[in-house]
Amino acid sequence: MKYGNNKYEDIKIAYIGGGSRGWAWGFMSDLAVCEDMCGTVYLYDIDLEAAKKNEKIGNGIKDIEGCKSQWKYKAVETEKEALEGADFVIISILPGTFDEMESDVHTPEKYNIYQSVGDTAGPGGILRALRTIPMFEEIAENIKKCCPDAWVINYTNPMTMCVKTLYKVFPEIKAFGCCHEVFGTQKLLVNALEDIKGIKDVKREDIKVNVVGVNHFTWLTKAQYKDIDIFPVYREFAEKYKDNGFVKKSDENWMNKYFSCSEKVKIDLFLRYGSIAAAGDRHLAEFCPGDWYLKDKETVEKWGFALTPVSWRKGDLEKRLERSEKLYSGEEKFELKETGEEGVQQIRALLGLGDLVTNVNIPNYGQIPNLPIGAVVETNACFRANSLNPVFAGNIPQAIYPLISRVCGEQEQVVDCALNRDLDGVFNAFAADPNMCISVSDARKLFDEMVDNTKEYLKMYF
Amino acid sequence: MKYGNNKYEDIKIAYIGGGSRGWAWGFMSDLAVCEDMCGTVYLYDIDLEAAKKNEKIGNGIKDIEGCKSQWKYKAVETEKEALEGADFVIISILPGTFDEMESDVHTPEKYNIYQSVGDTAGPGGILRALRTIPMFEEIAENIKKCCPDAWVINYTNPMTMCVKTLYKVFPEIKAFGCCHEVFGTQKLLVNALEDIKGIKDVKREDIKVNVVGVNHFTWLTKAQYKDIDIFPVYREFAEKYKDNGFVKKSDENWMNKYFSCSEKVKIDLFLRYGSIAAAGDRHLAEFCPGDWYLKDKETVEKWGFALTPVSWRKGDLEKRLERSEKLYSGEEKFELKETGEEGVQQIRALLGLGDLVTNVNIPNYGQIPNLPIGAVVETNACFRANSLNPVFAGNIPQAIYPLISRVCGEQEQVVDCALNRDLDGVFNAFAADPNMCISVSDARKLFDEMVDNTKEYLKMYF
Amino acid sequence: MKYGNNKYEDIKIAYIGGGSRGWAWGFMSDLAVCEDMCGTVYLYDIDLEAAKKNEKIGNGIKDIEGCKSQWKYKAVETEKEALEGADFVIISILPGTFDEMESDVHTPEKYNIYQSVGDTAGPGGILRALRTIPMFEEIAENIKKCCPDAWVINYTNPMTMCVKTLYKVFPEIKAFGCCHEVFGTQKLLVNALEDIKGIKDVKREDIKVNVVGVNHFTWLTKAQYKDIDIFPVYREFAEKYKDNGFVKKSDENWMNKYFSCSEKVKIDLFLRYGSIAAAGDRHLAEFCPGDWYLKDKETVEKWGFALTPVSWRKGDLEKRLERSEKLYSGEEKFELKETGEEGVQQIRALLGLGDLVTNVNIPNYGQIPNLPIGAVVETNACFRANSLNPVFAGNIPQAIYPLISRVCGEQEQVVDCALNRDLDGVFNAFAADPNMCISVSDARKLFDEMVDNTKEYLKMYF
Amino acid sequence: MKYGNNKYEDIKIAYIGGGSRGWAWGFMSDLAVCEDMCGTVYLYDIDLEAAKKNEKIGNGIKDIEGCKSQWKYKAVETEKEALEGADFVIISILPGTFDEMESDVHTPEKYNIYQSVGDTAGPGGILRALRTIPMFEEIAENIKKCCPDAWVINYTNPMTMCVKTLYKVFPEIKAFGCCHEVFGTQKLLVNALEDIKGIKDVKREDIKVNVVGVNHFTWLTKAQYKDIDIFPVYREFAEKYKDNGFVKKSDENWMNKYFSCSEKVKIDLFLRYGSIAAAGDRHLAEFCPGDWYLKDKETVEKWGFALTPVSWRKGDLEKRLERSEKLYSGEEKFELKETGEEGVQQIRALLGLGDLVTNVNIPNYGQIPNLPIGAVVETNACFRANSLNPVFAGNIPQAIYPLISRVCGEQEQVVDCALNRDLDGVFNAFAADPNMCISVSDARKLFDEMVDNTKEYLKMYF
Repeated sequence: MKYGNNKYEDIKIAYIGGGSRGWAWGFMSDLAVCEDMCGTVYLYDIDLEAAKKNEKIGNGIKDIEGCKSQWKYKAVETEKEALEGADFVIISILPGTFDEMESDVHTPEKYNIYQSVGDTAGPGGILRALRTIPMFEEIAENIKKCCPDAWVINYTNPMTMCVKTLYKVFPEIKAFGCCHEVFGTQKLLVNALEDIKGIKDVKREDIKVNVVGVNHFTWLTKAQYKDIDIFPVYREFAEKYKDNGFVKKSDENWMNKYFSCSEKVKIDLFLRYGSIAAAGDRHLAEFCPGDWYLKDKETVEKWGFALTPVSWRKGDLEKRLERSEKLYSGEEKFELKETGEEGVQQIRALLGLGDLVTNVNIPNYGQIPNLPIGAVVETNACFRANSLNPVFAGNIPQAIYPLISRVCGEQEQVVDCALNRDLDGVFNAFAADPNMCISVSDARKLFDEMVDNTKEYLKMYF
Repeated sequence: MKYGNNKYEDIKIAYIGGGSRGWAWGFMSDLAVCEDMCGTVYLYDIDLEAAKKNEKIGNGIKDIEGCKSQWKYKAVETEKEALEGADFVIISILPGTFDEMESDVHTPEKYNIYQSVGDTAGPGGILRALRTIPMFEEIAENIKKCCPDAWVINYTNPMTMCVKTLYKVFPEIKAFGCCHEVFGTQKLLVNALEDIKGIKDVKREDIKVNVVGVNHFTWLTKAQYKDIDIFPVYREFAEKYKDNGFVKKSDENWMNKYFSCSEKVKIDLFLRYGSIAAAGDRHLAEFCPGDWYLKDKETVEKWGFALTPVSWRKGDLEKRLERSEKLYSGEEKFELKETGEEGVQQIRALLGLGDLVTNVNIPNYGQIPNLPIGAVVETNACFRANSLNPVFAGNIPQAIYPLISRVCGEQEQVVDCALNRDLDGVFNAFAADPNMCISVSDARKLFDEMVDNTKEYLKMYF
Repeated sequence: MKYGNNKYEDIKIAYIGGGSRGWAWGFMSDLAVCEDMCGTVYLYDIDLEAAKKNEKIGNGIKDIEGCKSQWKYKAVETEKEALEGADFVIISILPGTFDEMESDVHTPEKYNIYQSVGDTAGPGGILRALRTIPMFEEIAENIKKCCPDAWVINYTNPMTMCVKTLYKVFPEIKAFGCCHEVFGTQKLLVNALEDIKGIKDVKREDIKVNVVGVNHFTWLTKAQYKDIDIFPVYREFAEKYKDNGFVKKSDENWMNKYFSCSEKVKIDLFLRYGSIAAAGDRHLAEFCPGDWYLKDKETVEKWGFALTPVSWRKGDLEKRLERSEKLYSGEEKFELKETGEEGVQQIRALLGLGDLVTNVNIPNYGQIPNLPIGAVVETNACFRANSLNPVFAGNIPQAIYPLISRVCGEQEQVVDCALNRDLDGVFNAFAADPNMCISVSDARKLFDEMVDNTKEYLKMYF
Repeated sequence: MKYGNNKYEDIKIAYIGGGSRGWAWGFMSDLAVCEDMCGTVYLYDIDLEAAKKNEKIGNGIKDIEGCKSQWKYKAVETEKEALEGADFVIISILPGTFDEMESDVHTPEKYNIYQSVGDTAGPGGILRALRTIPMFEEIAENIKKCCPDAWVINYTNPMTMCVKTLYKVFPEIKAFGCCHEVFGTQKLLVNALEDIKGIKDVKREDIKVNVVGVNHFTWLTKAQYKDIDIFPVYREFAEKYKDNGFVKKSDENWMNKYFSCSEKVKIDLFLRYGSIAAAGDRHLAEFCPGDWYLKDKETVEKWGFALTPVSWRKGDLEKRLERSEKLYSGEEKFELKETGEEGVQQIRALLGLGDLVTNVNIPNYGQIPNLPIGAVVETNACFRANSLNPVFAGNIPQAIYPLISRVCGEQEQVVDCALNRDLDGVFNAFAADPNMCISVSDARKLFDEMVDNTKEYLKMYF
């Protein structure tokens, strides 16, 4: 790449998982409306056809009205081709298929273990990690060989374990993981400001928060809007909506019954623990003891959120495939709109085009002193020209330390054991997961079944 | 006190809980057979009569054959009288009566929560802490006033929370907590050496161990006898006895069905986690997820240990009271025998009469880098003349970090909230305890009932 | 204060040292051109007349063309009056007079100890600290009473010791220290980019740096402009100018012989140590062993910088007093121009009007892991709405650790001893200062003389 | 080796530097009087003849009256032969000859830099390190290959840098460095107890001390004998002897003018800094600023200690060579007497034959929280069966932190640069050494000359 005339040219981005129908399009859109950089995005996907379709879709964007920068897209046949000499690497893959995810999410139901998402924590998250970690191992090794100086942005779940794998395999990697769950909570705080204080038109980014925790089990220890400490405001809001939940009108239109969320889990955790739980309720619930919010379907309903069945994801994929065809054929026009994701802003900041402070997932260098050094945590970090430094976040508050330290440690354990191909070690983490309100012997049966269900992706362990 | 002719004289010991029928007698016996020190033990107890009886019993010891040093015993009416100018303070109290303990242990059974001991962890341990912490607050304040330079040895449970309270209230206190559970595991390793290797007559103290964890959930990361690494020996032993358990002949005589233990929990934890769990199975079980070893009475039986009903303790107390009367009246002769406790050896070491390295409960200065600084932990420490320094123990091994960090944090939380008289904060710890496999609303009902049952001792919270 | 319509009103700023002729005017100017806030600045100074003059000067600004916000200025008679309810506190005082500074700087010359500035490090810095620390003690106590929630910006030297005093006296204080020396080095890097690479019109703020060290002995471990790593550029620059120094044309006009600097010290330190020394050469020299750059006047000349005699400062003060009169009388027009200082931008960021990442002096929370926790260090920090968090800076590089750790520790020692009124303790730091290439007995004589010279301000130590 | 009947047999010890005339004989003597272990000592020395002589001398010991255990001695031709399968490794070598040491010690005198020992700190220590580090590199690599599980005891100076090299090259090494300087200070405290308090016959080991610092610049933060805090006693002693020094009668006989020491440096440091400097004055002086105790010969004399000329060492070596011949030929009888060194006791403790707590040089795991993790420091450690764990020592007291942190960092720097063959990096440490009260350019000339003088041993750097 090169910089001149207030603009970067010839940036090379490798997109691993570049056949994606969804994330990739959003990223293309965000790139297109960003004036001060352009270059080429290399799309790599195990589904080469999908990548090729995205190549064509991407290359069509430059002709759309409102497009401000000319990016080229190129599908490539090998990961290394994509990575070679890359300035940035995006990783957004689905480890396995929705069939595997179906096992992850629904097999545990035999033991009355319900999971609202099943991609991060709990038995589903661990099995997904088993598939994902070897893939990230390979990616990390390839990055080491092909583009050791590239900045690497991961969007894949289980986030914490993916990022940890990258750093274990290639400690000098410049990687971080991005997730928009905290943004959702900032938006809820915007709602609270309007609902309680009558303050309108506050922007999400103007809610300044201090973030601690691990991905999808993030907590805010401070939230401020201009001169207003939001904690007392949110307390009032929480008391108001703790019984019936808070559902925004606009959300209802978009949402469906499988993603519904009335913020009651979030509110309950806040009222009990004093810090603001800052992820979707479906995620938060999966990090808490299994008897709290996910005991059974009635409990889930009572807490006003939903279990997302993988069947829905399969159906949704169909729709996205159809849309892909239409975009590919030109039947549907690609529309430019900002996604609200920060990936492109982070890239700009790393290129020195404006500082950015936001939350990311990176190893703990001491930004959270009472979690183990090296564990991947989510806190604010400071993006500047070719640098990403964590912002000191402070200790996990004592009240929530027991909840967070155990899952932080569990995820560390899974990564290490998976890298050592030690399934028994992984099982130890699995058995002690907060969701696992069953005996060790039942846990073992469940684990073995889940491994067997997804064994096609787990050959390296045997 | 003063030192001369290789001997200390006029040592002043304050014994808080000095009416004890059991611990106190053992301590008296250990003092009597120690040649190089003598002085006065001031016995304070809320049951003054009991202290007076022990005064007489203690003062009779000097005439027993085998007594090597002349200690005086004196019952006093106030705690301050006992503490004033003390060189050493022993704290060994029962917080409340066995009626309160009955509530601690058995009330949770309504929710199918079984506790094998109920004095350290779990709902019972937390309620006991609620009673104990204000008592230790007062003791710490009195020590600060009356004998700030004294060494303070605590034997009371819940150990971790008692010691933490002392340090929170009087940070300069020279206090530590002692517990013999690790010794029991060292003895088991002696058995393993004999059973597997045919090595006989090994002394417990010659098993050198590295200890990490919190009291009653202690783990050995290293165990060595002379040139033998005991880990592979213990592994063989564990494999041999994992199904049917290991019960020593001599133990059977002593034990009764309420204290039985076949080491199967300990063995299971070792085989799964790779470090040696080092406390009695009844204690270990209470720190693990409730569904593992304490799910129901059948599970307990299957794992070869027992629930100790408080009714048994009440009966046992009767017997000890009877024995107290007999010792007091002279009907029974006081017998001198070493208890195997290390209290007197620790005192000697602190007086400069010989270095001692053994495990104790003190704040974390960094001896366990991956637990929070300041949290009370159990590791080896080095006792020398007027100094007690922790020995670097290393990180909690990753595999057991999730199990230990959560209970370590929970206990920190209980102490802080109890000192702030914040019952809601205590409840948060209570609800997240590993034993609590119930919903938050049920947890609240149980908590309220347990508080109500013991409210006579909890007035300061209202 | 209150926020509305994208603007803050009624902000209350306390300016301690508000009679200043120089800093205060610059600050007034920066406030005036900032659109989104206004309020009142309370000027407190031991020289009330000076404050009153600044009141009039300040209140005249609103009528100047280009003034964008209406600030009121009000001189007050007591520090507490200024502080009461303040939102922000500026501290910019001269501890003592230039007579005391004359002793600080020139008395050591009797022992061939030359100081180029004498306000931060070395014997002069320590004596100045002796006067300043009790003043800051009082300020901190008043802030605790009058405006505990205010943000406090210190500009006074010795910076590190001033900020440390504030935190020692009132640990919850929200204080930080600002210094523009790093900016000067960023400008030098701008020059290097132009000189070596031909890149023009780079802005100082676009040089992104990672800062470690203590104030006036700050070092850059990373410097980046867009996609350019500046280290190799600066190395080329350093090799080019190491013999004859680098003097910018524009600087020559402004500078006089007492402030001259040819960057040779900075270049020498870089070439030897590999990190970029990032303060003026006159400051850097004072933190290095006395025989390096300040051995005698010839050595100073050889290294291309100057000793600033206090007589010059006295003359300069005369000129500033004259200018003050002219501004006061209206003979001279107050001119609005940006100072390049960041104080007003920091205030804006703390009000939530835009994030800012810049270098400041605050306690070490772990942002520099190999310096003691709690020591005041200079690193980047992140300013956001009502929050200031250090950015992780990493270890002091091994090569410069010996140079920095000793002065960091020395300053900690001076503050503690000064707060305890322990002059012997301060002397220990004094004797071991890098500049002190003399025997301990000579050091004592010098110390006593310097104390005696300034005893009017040191009564609290006797 | 094997253990049985309360005794170890077939222990294999590798002695690197086994041709030594002095240390080796003492070690043989200590081994001979230790009942519970025996085996073979493999003597390796670059001077094979010397090793062979020691083989014969050693093998003659078993016939001496008072010899309690039968050790065999065997000179070997290669280091690897000695190390292969060793249980313990002793390293006690002279890096280079006294000709090189002559350059180390006396060349700096051209610049008025005087060194009392010149083997640890200062320019001499650094040049010695340059020769030694590559030798230790090789030793560490051989240990890794031949006996990775052996315990390694180093006696060679510069101690800190030798031990650090072992750990840098082979991080899993079980190595520590031993030095008797702290023992000497304990003996001085014994003298103080007798002199001030009239307490007689106190044993060195009964003075319990807390040690912090780096080798030869160790400090005691606590010293206790039974119930007596020695600090006030030592203060009285220090005041009594600060002017004329303290010289023990018995010492005078032994000592000569080149080793004289009147403890005045030690006393001065104590009175100024409040912690007890705990090494010989000749060593302590070399870690302090050069103008304090080593400014010139008059200053040295005034402080009551001596510079040890290398010519004396050469003469002494002659005598030891003569004695070697006599022992070899049988003309002189080998005499068994305890050396007061602890090496053999440490070996016993590591074999599980009795716990030992004493001071050693090992990496900082956090035993001194305010020095960098990983730096080699001297503190107490706990020796037990196959384990050596540091005892928590606490922070370097603030008053001496500036003195210690800089030399600690300097030594880290020298090791790293020497391992990287980076002489310029070593020079940076050299130039900033406390003894170097000269300009950087003079320092460079001196460095180059010293390197040139000893270049035969420094070929790997060119």
